[in-house]
Amino acid sequence: MQRYFLENKAIVNNQIIIDGNDYHHIKNVMRMVKGEKVYICLNEETYIASLNSFFDDYILFDILDKVGFNPEMFAEVTIAHGLVRREKKEEVLRRIVELGANKYIPVNMARSVVKPCSDENKLERQKKIIKEASEQSHRNKLMEVCAPISMKELINLSKDYDLSLFAYEESGRSNDFSLKDKLREFRKNNKKNILVLVGPEGGFTNEEVKLLCASGFFSVGLGPRILRTETAPLYVMAAISYELEMGD
Amino acid sequence: MQRYFLENKAIVNNQIIIDGNDYHHIKNVMRMVKGEKVYICLNEETYIASLNSFFDDYILFDILDKVGFNPEMFAEVTIAHGLVRREKKEEVLRRIVELGANKYIPVNMARSVVKPCSDENKLERQKKIIKEASEQSHRNKLMEVCAPISMKELINLSKDYDLSLFAYEESGRSNDFSLKDKLREFRKNNKKNILVLVGPEGGFTNEEVKLLCASGFFSVGLGPRILRTETAPLYVMAAISYELEMGD
Repeated sequence: MQRYFLENKAIVNNQIIIDGNDYHHIKNVMRMVKGEKVYICLNEETYIASLNSFFDDYILFDILDKVGFNPEMFAEVTIAHGLVRREKKEEVLRRIVELGANKYIPVNMARSVVKPCSDENKLERQKKIIKEASEQSHRNKLMEVCAPISMKELINLSKDYDLSLFAYEESGRSNDFSLKDKLREFRKNNKKNILVLVGPEGGFTNEEVKLLCASGFFSVGLGPRILRTETAPLYVMAAISYELEMGD
Repeated sequence: MQRYFLENKAIVNNQIIIDGNDYHHIKNVMRMVKGEKVYICLNEETYIASLNSFFDDYILFDILDKVGFNPEMFAEVTIAHGLVRREKKEEVLRRIVELGANKYIPVNMARSVVKPCSDENKLERQKKIIKEASEQSHRNKLMEVCAPISMKELINLSKDYDLSLFAYEESGRSNDFSLKDKLREFRKNNKKNILVLVGPEGGFTNEEVKLLCASGFFSVGLGPRILRTETAPLYVMAAISYELEMGD
């Protein structure tokens, strides 16, 4: 069953309208007819709705039921990621949506080999990837993707988080158990949001490590092997899911 | 520093010879000269070696030191995976090598959309991917990749494992904590090897689920979201690393 993510819409008298791109998709791509059912994701809830009727530029749906099951993580996880090439970034976006991430922030770091770019077409493409991955993994909200920011801006942002970590490759080589320690502490104290920074291909400079540590970030290792910059965010997300979503 | 994985070779009087493809790579690609250093991985140890001299079809290296740090997981993890398309398979190979897997076995399952194929060229290509990923992640042994087998053969094979799991999407939807339970039990009892089966795109048939349960496999969920067939093995590997490699 097709899944549509709506924003700025409301259910009125158990009915809801769909317009814009989704209208086109339902009418011309899916060629749906009256009575066909879809999932509608709205305000972090998922509803089952049935097509009532077509109008000139919108479609009216009847809400039939609410899906009780919530696939979202109780913790909101933001992955901040040193700027990497487009293919790597898209690969990461796709996977961390499946793994439950809440936000992705590209960060312009000293060893990033690509330059920050806020090309609207690219952002649109990324949003499409996120939408598809969200449908695929049956999420009921869309992960947010931000325009690139500087390290300084990231450090300012980190003040809004209960826990800020950075995945430092030197940590992992020497029996570093801090990821587990930090996540358990987070869980025990019923905290709400986590920020994890993963470096670009070349990793962190000494200055960046010092700056992060001085700004309240904790260094964590991701096991004894060296992970690529596009694998590290997946490890982080899986570890957080395993720690927080699978019982004590 | 370049890393070479040698098989069927021995260190004699603190020297070792490199021939074949690696000989070509050192001489013609890297254009190394006397005195240059490389890592040599042999029998799950990593050595630092220095180029001594070139001969007609081999190169002699002096062993200088052994690397004390061992990046390998103490548990040997085999990922069995319903047959999937080449690109997905290669993506999984690359990532699970980084995440520490020991073996990859493709399995011909009811809902696999591709047919088993044991094309030698493809196997060579896969071995190359594994070698590159092993170098990248600083492992000291190469993950094994097998030719496709049947479900019946997999079940026979599973008798050699201390723990056999299958990642069943229906499990994850209903607060299934069995992955954590099983891994903790495994750890507590100092077991050695784990087999995890991940289904193809279409998942498992009811018959397959019954057969697996009757054959000593345990069903485990991978969190409340639906993961793609190429993401599930990464979740499994990260969870195993997190549970077994990061302290109690």
